[in-house]
Amino acid sequence: MERKLLLTVSIILNLVFTFHILYRNSTTWNPTWTSRAAIEAEDAASVSCSGHGRAYVDGIGLLEGKQPPCECNDCYTGKDCSILLSDCPVNANSGDPLFLEPFWMRQAESSAALVSGWHRMSYIYQDGTYMSEALETVIRKLHSVVGNAVTDNRFVIFGSGSTQLLAAAVHALSLTNSSSSPPARLLASIPYYAMYKEQAEFFDSVHLKFEGDAFVWKNSERDDNTTQVIEVVTSPNNPDGKLKRAVLDGPNVKTIHDYAYYWPYFSPITVPADEELSLFSLSKTTGHAGSRFGWGLVKDKSVYEKMKRYITLTSMGVSRTTQLHVLQLLNVVVRDGGENIFHFGHETLKKRWETLNKVFSRSTRFSLQKIKPEYCNYFKKVRDFTPAYAWVKCERPEDANCYEIFKEAKITGRDGKVFGTEESFVRLSLIRSQDDFDHLIDMLKKLVIVEGVEAHSI
Amino acid sequence: MERKLLLTVSIILNLVFTFHILYRNSTTWNPTWTSRAAIEAEDAASVSCSGHGRAYVDGIGLLEGKQPPCECNDCYTGKDCSILLSDCPVNANSGDPLFLEPFWMRQAESSAALVSGWHRMSYIYQDGTYMSEALETVIRKLHSVVGNAVTDNRFVIFGSGSTQLLAAAVHALSLTNSSSSPPARLLASIPYYAMYKEQAEFFDSVHLKFEGDAFVWKNSERDDNTTQVIEVVTSPNNPDGKLKRAVLDGPNVKTIHDYAYYWPYFSPITVPADEELSLFSLSKTTGHAGSRFGWGLVKDKSVYEKMKRYITLTSMGVSRTTQLHVLQLLNVVVRDGGENIFHFGHETLKKRWETLNKVFSRSTRFSLQKIKPEYCNYFKKVRDFTPAYAWVKCERPEDANCYEIFKEAKITGRDGKVFGTEESFVRLSLIRSQDDFDHLIDMLKKLVIVEGVEAHSI
Repeated sequence: MERKLLLTVSIILNLVFTFHILYRNSTTWNPTWTSRAAIEAEDAASVSCSGHGRAYVDGIGLLEGKQPPCECNDCYTGKDCSILLSDCPVNANSGDPLFLEPFWMRQAESSAALVSGWHRMSYIYQDGTYMSEALETVIRKLHSVVGNAVTDNRFVIFGSGSTQLLAAAVHALSLTNSSSSPPARLLASIPYYAMYKEQAEFFDSVHLKFEGDAFVWKNSERDDNTTQVIEVVTSPNNPDGKLKRAVLDGPNVKTIHDYAYYWPYFSPITVPADEELSLFSLSKTTGHAGSRFGWGLVKDKSVYEKMKRYITLTSMGVSRTTQLHVLQLLNVVVRDGGENIFHFGHETLKKRWETLNKVFSRSTRFSLQKIKPEYCNYFKKVRDFTPAYAWVKCERPEDANCYEIFKEAKITGRDGKVFGTEESFVRLSLIRSQDDFDHLIDMLKKLVIVEGVEAHSI
Repeated sequence: MERKLLLTVSIILNLVFTFHILYRNSTTWNPTWTSRAAIEAEDAASVSCSGHGRAYVDGIGLLEGKQPPCECNDCYTGKDCSILLSDCPVNANSGDPLFLEPFWMRQAESSAALVSGWHRMSYIYQDGTYMSEALETVIRKLHSVVGNAVTDNRFVIFGSGSTQLLAAAVHALSLTNSSSSPPARLLASIPYYAMYKEQAEFFDSVHLKFEGDAFVWKNSERDDNTTQVIEVVTSPNNPDGKLKRAVLDGPNVKTIHDYAYYWPYFSPITVPADEELSLFSLSKTTGHAGSRFGWGLVKDKSVYEKMKRYITLTSMGVSRTTQLHVLQLLNVVVRDGGENIFHFGHETLKKRWETLNKVFSRSTRFSLQKIKPEYCNYFKKVRDFTPAYAWVKCERPEDANCYEIFKEAKITGRDGKVFGTEESFVRLSLIRSQDDFDHLIDMLKKLVIVEGVEAHSI
């Protein structure tokens, strides 16, 4: 009787095992050639850096078989980034968009891309171009779900960041000048993003001269309605986050719209952009500054062709590996109509602005830019602007150099002068990592407390 | 008795199952967040395209859950690329380096790279630069194992293909001119790669003028030993594969060495390059033209800094995704001292040249470039040159336009004129896919047979 029971149990167990193995084999996928790369990526991702850093598969000093080292956030150190450096100055300078990093970590599965060793080795895609058709399609879809730009009757062009596209656009528009005529003037209204000036001055073309502020030009005698003029309109503006319109018009004026920041994170989407030449940057769309990817929407075919020629002669298009990665990322964004990422990013910035406003509300020495709320077609409600940067003014006459005041308080911003305006302004980046932001707030609080003490002691 | 046997068998089976499961669990890795990307990549790789095409994960018209479509080699069509188009012209124009694609397909496991959604989102690496230190290290190692360039006391700089670096180098060297002096002259000896001329003419800088042939300049009165001169030396040369030396020297001369083809596939490695400014291209190193990656070795710090500034203002460095992929590829190359890839690539080209020489040996109408064998420090023996291109001369006076003669025979080469020389030359690419090469040989045979018939009929 006992033996019979044992036999029955044993046979049942056999059946269970058999089912288990059959079931596993039918549903678990066995990785073959991709497994090495996958394991390495998972290994790197599993390195604990105390929430103050991360390890990458291409980390420095990585030895075969060893885990990659932690790369710590600013002011953190130690093997696992657990040590906070005391008295460490905070970097609020560059617009490194790491505020979106936590989003992509949560989307690990959907956003990963495996690049095979033989991925698109050719110079061209099947259609003979340097651009992935699949990627172009998802970019058009992205604008349609966000409602920030019209893509109908527009050519799409890719570049190594909007940096390359800006140079291409300026080049293309200045070429329309005949060789005997004076150089076209490049203008932007103050405060403006420094890159426009830097590029124009560095390339030093026969056909182009950076001329500075568009308002000054408009009110000067030199605005003769015949000199070729190119105005760059940054909207929302870098540094101050305001929606901007072109200052100049006329048959001699061409306009480039830099819409890098026209995403629901930073600004209400008031109307779909419908311009001649618009530029966008992945850096401020998904946070991938390091991927060096941007795109342009171009109405005029001949301008598009000239920009394409520029891209060909400077780099023969954007890396196909990068295009594959960007496709994967934007597919994640559009899948739910941007719901996840734009809410995450906007909520993060909203909270940061609340904290920031609270700190500055105690100050009379420093003031922040003010922008009236507007209706956002994306969030379907009236909302505040939550710009990528705080555009801070030092109000006291004795604080002439605002950048230096902050520098002394161990906060590195970006000098107002860089944006063509006065030294009484400084730009503070709010889109960096949470560590950087928290640190910035701590330092700002100290600065404002000092102000309070000073006021008290008078 | 029977029951006892059954029980024993059953228990043994249970033990086997138990071990099996335990063993599996301890040695088989269970992919988690990387599995989706890995499955997609393996799915795409498993699509059969009859050996005449391939499917990519970012294929056009890819619908979720469906396999990506085949992208067929030239002259093949059909859903699985099994149909050969009759009377199809062969493309022997561009230097698309697909001859190395089979190598990377065999190295599937070691060359795959998994890019996480949060991979290096920042503008900068940990050290504040735009360049992966790990990648720089492997590039130095690559030159050391191949013996084709000295990297000691050299700065390494990355670009979006050698295309961008060439523009950066020319810009940097022309800037040394004072603003009042006449523009620097850009020269190359004929036949030369057309990009040098095209870039200089397109950018139309105040500081630079393309002047054509270096020999003509040397023998002209304008070679006054004071005008700033930049000579580009392509060695092995594109189009003819010969090792080239600078034509000009003197205190007013700066030289850029384009070593894109200085790899054991194409040429004996006679000596490690030890120049002021050398450029290399991933396209001709591993065959990844689509990855748009190149690097330069620069001796002079101020030239390096100017080139860095150029790269910053045109693209803020090379995509970090691309740098990760390139690191993986070059790690595979250097792991065995280049043994596998250089033997594979060289053998492929050797066979192609044997076939080509055989076809042309029957012809008096067409001739190929001849280069004397030299000792190769990499293969440790005297070897023939196996250039990337056949540089074909049409010998008959009535065949004045060689490109057109080949075009009529349905072979698209590249016109000698493009390289600054006569129309009696045409360049045929030998580094494309095996299908393209086989097709080229078929068409060439027909052309040479016609010649035989014509000769016979005279």
